[in-house]
Amino acid sequence: MTEPAIVLGANQYGKAEVRVVKVTRDTARHEIDDLNVTSQLRGDFTAAHLAGDNAHIVPTDTQKNTIFAFARDGIGSPEEFLLRLADHFTGSFDWVSGGRWEAEKFAWQRIVAHGEPNDHAFVRSGQEVRTALVVADGADRHVIAGLKDLTVLKTTQSGFEGYPKDRYTTLPETRDRILATDVSARWRYRGAGVNAGFDYNDACDSVRALLLEAFTEAYSAALQTTLFDMGRRVLERHDEIAEIRLSMPNKHHFVVDLSPFGLDNPNEVFYAADRPYGLIEAAVVREGVESPAAAWDAVVGFC
Amino acid sequence: MTEPAIVLGANQYGKAEVRVVKVTRDTARHEIDDLNVTSQLRGDFTAAHLAGDNAHIVPTDTQKNTIFAFARDGIGSPEEFLLRLADHFTGSFDWVSGGRWEAEKFAWQRIVAHGEPNDHAFVRSGQEVRTALVVADGADRHVIAGLKDLTVLKTTQSGFEGYPKDRYTTLPETRDRILATDVSARWRYRGAGVNAGFDYNDACDSVRALLLEAFTEAYSAALQTTLFDMGRRVLERHDEIAEIRLSMPNKHHFVVDLSPFGLDNPNEVFYAADRPYGLIEAAVVREGVESPAAAWDAVVGFC
Amino acid sequence: MTEPAIVLGANQYGKAEVRVVKVTRDTARHEIDDLNVTSQLRGDFTAAHLAGDNAHIVPTDTQKNTIFAFARDGIGSPEEFLLRLADHFTGSFDWVSGGRWEAEKFAWQRIVAHGEPNDHAFVRSGQEVRTALVVADGADRHVIAGLKDLTVLKTTQSGFEGYPKDRYTTLPETRDRILATDVSARWRYRGAGVNAGFDYNDACDSVRALLLEAFTEAYSAALQTTLFDMGRRVLERHDEIAEIRLSMPNKHHFVVDLSPFGLDNPNEVFYAADRPYGLIEAAVVREGVESPAAAWDAVVGFC
Amino acid sequence: MTEPAIVLGANQYGKAEVRVVKVTRDTARHEIDDLNVTSQLRGDFTAAHLAGDNAHIVPTDTQKNTIFAFARDGIGSPEEFLLRLADHFTGSFDWVSGGRWEAEKFAWQRIVAHGEPNDHAFVRSGQEVRTALVVADGADRHVIAGLKDLTVLKTTQSGFEGYPKDRYTTLPETRDRILATDVSARWRYRGAGVNAGFDYNDACDSVRALLLEAFTEAYSAALQTTLFDMGRRVLERHDEIAEIRLSMPNKHHFVVDLSPFGLDNPNEVFYAADRPYGLIEAAVVREGVESPAAAWDAVVGFC
Repeated sequence: MTEPAIVLGANQYGKAEVRVVKVTRDTARHEIDDLNVTSQLRGDFTAAHLAGDNAHIVPTDTQKNTIFAFARDGIGSPEEFLLRLADHFTGSFDWVSGGRWEAEKFAWQRIVAHGEPNDHAFVRSGQEVRTALVVADGADRHVIAGLKDLTVLKTTQSGFEGYPKDRYTTLPETRDRILATDVSARWRYRGAGVNAGFDYNDACDSVRALLLEAFTEAYSAALQTTLFDMGRRVLERHDEIAEIRLSMPNKHHFVVDLSPFGLDNPNEVFYAADRPYGLIEAAVVREGVESPAAAWDAVVGFC
Repeated sequence: MTEPAIVLGANQYGKAEVRVVKVTRDTARHEIDDLNVTSQLRGDFTAAHLAGDNAHIVPTDTQKNTIFAFARDGIGSPEEFLLRLADHFTGSFDWVSGGRWEAEKFAWQRIVAHGEPNDHAFVRSGQEVRTALVVADGADRHVIAGLKDLTVLKTTQSGFEGYPKDRYTTLPETRDRILATDVSARWRYRGAGVNAGFDYNDACDSVRALLLEAFTEAYSAALQTTLFDMGRRVLERHDEIAEIRLSMPNKHHFVVDLSPFGLDNPNEVFYAADRPYGLIEAAVVREGVESPAAAWDAVVGFC
Repeated sequence: MTEPAIVLGANQYGKAEVRVVKVTRDTARHEIDDLNVTSQLRGDFTAAHLAGDNAHIVPTDTQKNTIFAFARDGIGSPEEFLLRLADHFTGSFDWVSGGRWEAEKFAWQRIVAHGEPNDHAFVRSGQEVRTALVVADGADRHVIAGLKDLTVLKTTQSGFEGYPKDRYTTLPETRDRILATDVSARWRYRGAGVNAGFDYNDACDSVRALLLEAFTEAYSAALQTTLFDMGRRVLERHDEIAEIRLSMPNKHHFVVDLSPFGLDNPNEVFYAADRPYGLIEAAVVREGVESPAAAWDAVVGFC
Repeated sequence: MTEPAIVLGANQYGKAEVRVVKVTRDTARHEIDDLNVTSQLRGDFTAAHLAGDNAHIVPTDTQKNTIFAFARDGIGSPEEFLLRLADHFTGSFDWVSGGRWEAEKFAWQRIVAHGEPNDHAFVRSGQEVRTALVVADGADRHVIAGLKDLTVLKTTQSGFEGYPKDRYTTLPETRDRILATDVSARWRYRGAGVNAGFDYNDACDSVRALLLEAFTEAYSAALQTTLFDMGRRVLERHDEIAEIRLSMPNKHHFVVDLSPFGLDNPNEVFYAADRPYGLIEAAVVREGVESPAAAWDAVVGFC
């Protein structure tokens, strides 16, 4: 029996982390869009891999140039900007059948000086980074919005009880602990596209508010419960969202034992640990609705 | 028509980045294993998500304790250590049907003082980090080894020509440039397990050597060509490896234009750029051999 | 002639980056103080260095414990918390003649859910980190407050002209560019101490506002001009501040040349570069007022 | 009484982190120098700060260009390269009275493929980064070499006993623990300059070897003892070095308590903690030899 031949599997390539800043200065009141864009093409690139023939390799430098050129017409929402890139590349090169375009968007707030929001001076909001992801698979367009690094903490209304014990269990049960996490979320729109019938920016603001509300309002019996509640509220209020995936570390804050120093510690002094941390990840979905693998595939096992 | 119910989708949870260091001191010549281990369980955790019932939630703290306790018996290869964890958790809790165990392994070299390699003093090798990943899916065990952050560079024997041009193309062709990348690789063993019939440590050393050889020896017509050659050499020499996936940034080194200063620059002075960078990713596989989705799934779109 | 003996020079030691979180829960409306504290002692530690005699080495573990124990009584301002630590260590151990206590303070904002600021749920402000530094030198106490990573940008009202040209100059002059920086500032209080006659928290808020105002309001002829204006406004309004030092990178945003694509670019599309960056650093001081070297010394050339 | 005027204090400015890579390709066996260079000028820059007059502001862009242009003639040792820059800037502009030039140097090793060290392919050594610092103060030149991020660990031959106890002490004494640190060192040459009578590269290699030997060979009664021994060995063997400063974190490795699981742990299984960590810093000097403040000053309290 012959060994099977060694061949090229799934692959993609492009330019990563193009830092494009677009200033809209039509009036004295400037606007700013600050993005980190990654463009990756999928298609028939076998000759380059096997034979060093680059006839199909649209240079990553060209992909970068295209991003800057397209920004000249404005960014709009990051999702719409990525959709324009997807249509351009799949429409311009026969052998490009799809791709993956991703953006981080950094938020800026107007500086308020002497009580007035300034027209052209900004301070960077260091809170969450908004993310956008467009996957093109032939004529299909999958649009996945998200946010990451939204760091939240509640000082009470969190516990962890009723878990199974085995010989390796030493954790005591509690009904009152600090709960802290960095929320990472990605949600997929259904029927998405440039004329999707909703506003990507408004939707993102609303999802953020719902995630924060859910984190804040209910007693947390486990981070899993809180995570699911966060996702459920989003799906309940946003018909245009098919599913949402959440990844949330449990950033442990340990009550410090002050008894050796003759002090009590009624949940007042905590040590914030770095590692290890819990890691809770789940998808919240609509029953019976398929999740297209192509939308989420990272192709080679790397994000 | 009724809207479908909102339900829990794929999910996993556990303890991330447990920094365990095991010293073997049976003789005066100590050995050290330095790992960063992540344990994530998959199974039936619906009640916790929907109802705050933790009866199935093996605490992440217990998972951490188990890692430390298992290290008492020695680590061996990281792959075998993770397989032991996988068997333990799936074997101990009915509702745990699988999971994902991952490790980074940091290498240490003996310090040579006065010409003698010391018995107990080490300097950390700052080169690549070895990675190991075990995915349990029912009775199946998928073992994926890897390395990351192996930074390599060649000062010549690299070019990029013959690519398509469009209105956004400004890149000049070249037959002599610097090629630099950080190699990330993951390869999946077939028929893997504790008694796999080969040595995981030896296999890892051999793969590393083959990747370096391929990077070094051939003229690079594109990073894609080099990547495929690297993967092909590994599969050719390692029957026990089913497939390999590579992710390699193209870390640009631009020739500085010194002509304004009256100087030539025959590929001698370069500016090493941070961002943007090229990003080339591909799988090299055996024809007709299926890649099990369960082995590579990151569950929620996050690595 | 004999060679001089090899002896111990300046030295300090302690525990770095103690992550202490204090929750004040006297009422249902909780407050949170989130600090990263470093304690370093100075004094007579010669015997430990030269002879392995630890009789003077207050363990760094004890320093950590003391930080947690002192937090039980509340943090107040970070400056006052560090002053308490300074008094404790210099007062408790004869051979400890001084030291350096430093803190980072991370800000949290109440989450607003359904229009109401919550009593116990917070989102971390990702903007600047507040810093505090207390140096004890015998009976002297130097108090230096600061902030770092305050990222600001103005889209106009910045230029750079009239600079000297030499054979290595290629930069074109401009009267309209993006100016972006991460403000790091440290200011030293005079007559500082626990009963300083002013409120450290209020002073910090005011300094931050003045720095932002100066950045925002004037045309910037160079980052140096802006920096000095920022410092001057602080000293003009705060008699209790003796001097201020500012370190501000010039984070370049380059106008992208879109002409190869048939597009103009009237300062609308920029490439945000990572490295290299300008780095502008200066002290703004009161004429004739000495700056005590002991306040600023990093002892061993490391911050 | 009039308030003193608000004036400019110490200041410096320049271009930071210029990533210059120089390939020497006179023969088929290429050499590579990979540096990260920062140039900062000191002198009379008052008019720019106070009046927006840039007549004295040599652009940071020009400083960057000069670094690349000077690299065309080769780098040699980083110390010599920085000395050339110092002489150029102080010699070319009357109002530039000094400055601070700093470099990180990243090491590369030849890839060995099929047993042969390759002529043009390299793998980056991830161990310590070499540092160089030249401070010009009028005609004076201070040359400070260094290294950082040299991570070392010994599994035994380290303890900590005999320290003072107070009410906050809970640490048990030990004669056998893991000792781990990241060595940062800076040493100042005396009589330094381009024709210093010694080779900067050889000196650096020798210092590194001596630091490792001292860490390795003696029982460590405290990290302070080890630090001093490291510095002393360097000064004993290198007459050309006036002083050495060391900063070394104590990277704690805690013995995990496995007794709840029915296991002993004779110093075999450790938890490697991130924060907090000890931090030990000291200078080792020659008795009676003054350390020039100008050599070490960071000007504005920032490294």
